[in-house]
Amino acid sequence: MEGVPKEETLDPSDWSEVETLSHRIIDDAIGHLRDVRDRPAWQAMPANVRDIFRSPLPTDATPLGEVYRTVVDAVMAYPMGNIHPRFWAWYMGSSNFTGALGDFLAAIQGSNVGGGNHAAALIDSQVVSWCKEMLGFPAEASGTLVSGGSMANLIGLTVARNVKAGVDVREHGVAAMPQPLRFYGSDQIHGCHRKAIEALGLGNGALRRVGTDAALRIDIAELEAAITQDRAQGIRPACIIANAGTVNTGAIDDLPALADLAAREGLWLHVDGCVGALIAIAPENRHLVCGIERADSVALDPHKLLHAPFEAGCALVRDAAAHRGAFATTAEYLETAPRGLAAGGWLSDYGLQTSRGFRALKIWMALKEHGVAKFGRLIDQAIAQARHLTQRIEAEPMLELVAPTVVNIVCFRYRPRDTDASRRKEINVEIMLQLQENGIAVVSDTTVHGEHCLRAAIANHRTRQEDLDLLVREVIRTGDQLHAATS
Amino acid sequence: MEGVPKEETLDPSDWSEVETLSHRIIDDAIGHLRDVRDRPAWQAMPANVRDIFRSPLPTDATPLGEVYRTVVDAVMAYPMGNIHPRFWAWYMGSSNFTGALGDFLAAIQGSNVGGGNHAAALIDSQVVSWCKEMLGFPAEASGTLVSGGSMANLIGLTVARNVKAGVDVREHGVAAMPQPLRFYGSDQIHGCHRKAIEALGLGNGALRRVGTDAALRIDIAELEAAITQDRAQGIRPACIIANAGTVNTGAIDDLPALADLAAREGLWLHVDGCVGALIAIAPENRHLVCGIERADSVALDPHKLLHAPFEAGCALVRDAAAHRGAFATTAEYLETAPRGLAAGGWLSDYGLQTSRGFRALKIWMALKEHGVAKFGRLIDQAIAQARHLTQRIEAEPMLELVAPTVVNIVCFRYRPRDTDASRRKEINVEIMLQLQENGIAVVSDTTVHGEHCLRAAIANHRTRQEDLDLLVREVIRTGDQLHAATS
Ligand SMILES: Cc1ncc(COP(=O)(O)O)c(C=O)c1O
Ligand SMILES: Cc1ncc(COP(=O)(O)O)c(C=O)c1O
Repeated sequence: MEGVPKEETLDPSDWSEVETLSHRIIDDAIGHLRDVRDRPAWQAMPANVRDIFRSPLPTDATPLGEVYRTVVDAVMAYPMGNIHPRFWAWYMGSSNFTGALGDFLAAIQGSNVGGGNHAAALIDSQVVSWCKEMLGFPAEASGTLVSGGSMANLIGLTVARNVKAGVDVREHGVAAMPQPLRFYGSDQIHGCHRKAIEALGLGNGALRRVGTDAALRIDIAELEAAITQDRAQGIRPACIIANAGTVNTGAIDDLPALADLAAREGLWLHVDGCVGALIAIAPENRHLVCGIERADSVALDPHKLLHAPFEAGCALVRDAAAHRGAFATTAEYLETAPRGLAAGGWLSDYGLQTSRGFRALKIWMALKEHGVAKFGRLIDQAIAQARHLTQRIEAEPMLELVAPTVVNIVCFRYRPRDTDASRRKEINVEIMLQLQENGIAVVSDTTVHGEHCLRAAIANHRTRQEDLDLLVREVIRTGDQLHAATS
Repeated sequence: MEGVPKEETLDPSDWSEVETLSHRIIDDAIGHLRDVRDRPAWQAMPANVRDIFRSPLPTDATPLGEVYRTVVDAVMAYPMGNIHPRFWAWYMGSSNFTGALGDFLAAIQGSNVGGGNHAAALIDSQVVSWCKEMLGFPAEASGTLVSGGSMANLIGLTVARNVKAGVDVREHGVAAMPQPLRFYGSDQIHGCHRKAIEALGLGNGALRRVGTDAALRIDIAELEAAITQDRAQGIRPACIIANAGTVNTGAIDDLPALADLAAREGLWLHVDGCVGALIAIAPENRHLVCGIERADSVALDPHKLLHAPFEAGCALVRDAAAHRGAFATTAEYLETAPRGLAAGGWLSDYGLQTSRGFRALKIWMALKEHGVAKFGRLIDQAIAQARHLTQRIEAEPMLELVAPTVVNIVCFRYRPRDTDASRRKEINVEIMLQLQENGIAVVSDTTVHGEHCLRAAIANHRTRQEDLDLLVREVIRTGDQLHAATS
């Protein structure tokens, strides 16, 4: 035994203290979710809490119970707020307890889902198959779970680039392409597409933004003209990025028309379905995303409408060989060990990660527990709530809708009398901030076709109609106060 | 209330059942880790278990207790095995209970760490700061937590590309660069670099592999000659990718010499420290990675030597403005709201994700609990164990070392008498498979400078010296049996 010190490990020598503490953590966690409605939707951190997060790297040990106390006081008390029933900022899911158990169990089980012959790898593939089923994608299609919608879009656009490059772009790079490529999306596409196109070495200039109609859907005539014009100038039209739910207003591009156009022109059709793809499982609204199943690739986001705890995105690619061909670095037949842990292939061949977490488990457990039918009903519920809010806004003289409500995003504003646009924006921003600071509700703001507004994205399984009624009342009350103070 | 149905939610109407179940899950999880040594290191899944993972999308609900029973029987029982004390395949951490609690609490708390003014965003930044401290990086440097080492390398290489492009490559793309860029790495670099270079549109041809010496370190004279040759041919030398621990053998390139060379030649120095960067915290071995603090960017992997449950990688970039400049899509001053949730800036400006999970919490809790000194001792322990295994191998006539042991990776093989290379490989593969199938130990195999071998990567806080002694005995016993059966 000489030469090697007595071994240490991260496991406790006595598990009983950890056990007691863990039971307390469970009780606290359940209480945290059960009582979430009684807490503020958001609150600012006091200076002494912020200071905790400035301390240097700890050298020495601290009892876990003490670490947990800090977590309770400084972390659990100051969340972003998206688990709260009156959180409607940006567009995100609100997590769920079963998903949290899933993440815990995934970490206990510990598997690396980069591939191999073990249960986590099979569940990962099964959840991808379930995503295909939800969207009506063929079983032979390919897919991969990723960190979120941005990465899912990057996966789809990478395959599109490689397929349309006209050269072995993996070997020779973008500079070797016989023609520059063009990607098309509406002026409403999410910022992650620009980042993806830039990362891929195509340059932001390769992404052409096409105007949108009054309903914020891509103008197809303008798109067709752009394609013709680009071709005439020696640019190769490569890919249409369609929105199944824009981040701003939830607008859904005319997917069947875009699928026809892509087929006619030989373009890749990528659908960004981070907001709306999963509406395909909602019985009352699935017609809205009809045509999504014709895409060459789709990005969808289980951490949004399936409320998986972060992170969980998914890319689907119709042509499985093209998908693997964009990322794998070895021939498939070389890889498959006949037996043992390495049998079963590598899931890392379908994306940019090598090690991959077991994010599938939280999705799998929640889908098993609730069944997809309930998730579909919850999506219909969110859309119905958005329509309810829309009606309430339309009925209020001091409020106005700024974009048509299509799904579960509502763009609106307080409409003070006798003020200009800049003062109106100031008041609406102040309403948003006061609602946050008072812990009442969290909405964000945005600009739609040049008009500033508040934006409620109701992707929240805890929201009740009464919460939206409260929002209407509080926006008016706060707006009236602010307006009165200055007029 | 008309028009909107009675609301459903994912929360249970009665938490008491969930509470009881969760307490059982805690007890099971503790038992699972406490008794991990008594279970096989790996076992194949029987057909009836595999079938479970082929079932279609579930439409209807299943009680959570039943879902959990399937998880126990089919998922917990068939892991990859990396939490087991005798798992040494590839190179990965072995998770830890506190980290699992961290992932659970992160999911309960629910925050999106894309940015904003809340505790999770501050902890994320704090953990990045701690990573800088661990590596001796300056406090003004930048960094971001990502899904793993592959993404961390992609972040570093993206910044390198953009800084060295000689053109606004984000706007105009790789095709607009005045000269093609060249990246250099040894023939031992991890496959993720090729994938990154390809994704970035530079093409695999832009990545020049330089030979290695007997110790598997990059040949610096050859690298210098390559740089000179490329320059003469109108190619712009852009970036050296140095290894602080190769995936194959753990070899550490001469970092001070590479830093000097990069400075002299005006190249970006990116260090892939996924295997070895954190050796910087290990008192007995930190001299091995001295010079890493001079890098322009570093990739490190808390889900390896800090044993964070998957996923947790980190990219550090010395030049914070260049880091943000590679990814942000808006000017910094436009973004900072003065108050409310949106105050505090966007962490998504430092990478390719928009939504980001609260992966920082598991790292933060474990570092607080154990202190960094203990993690440093555990790294020294793993390296000491690898040296012990090396000595044991050198003392056994039927075994031989295939590469020098530098840190915690040991490349060796069974050396049957009177057989050729192909039969020797066959026997060693069969040894590896039988050790796996018998649940004794998990090692992987690789090829070092043309020689096939077994490979034990001892990045495992549960490993004891006796486990390695068992490995030696079992490799010899199995090898002798196989050899006897055919000679
Ligand atoms: C339309 C759309 N696409 C992409 C994304 C990015 O998704 P993620 O935040 O999961 O990366 C979002 C995020 O809200 C989105 O709304
Ligand atoms: C040297 C090296 N670089 C990069 C990686 C990729 O890291 P990850 O699997 O976390 O993506 C690895 C993985 O083992 C590695 O050993």
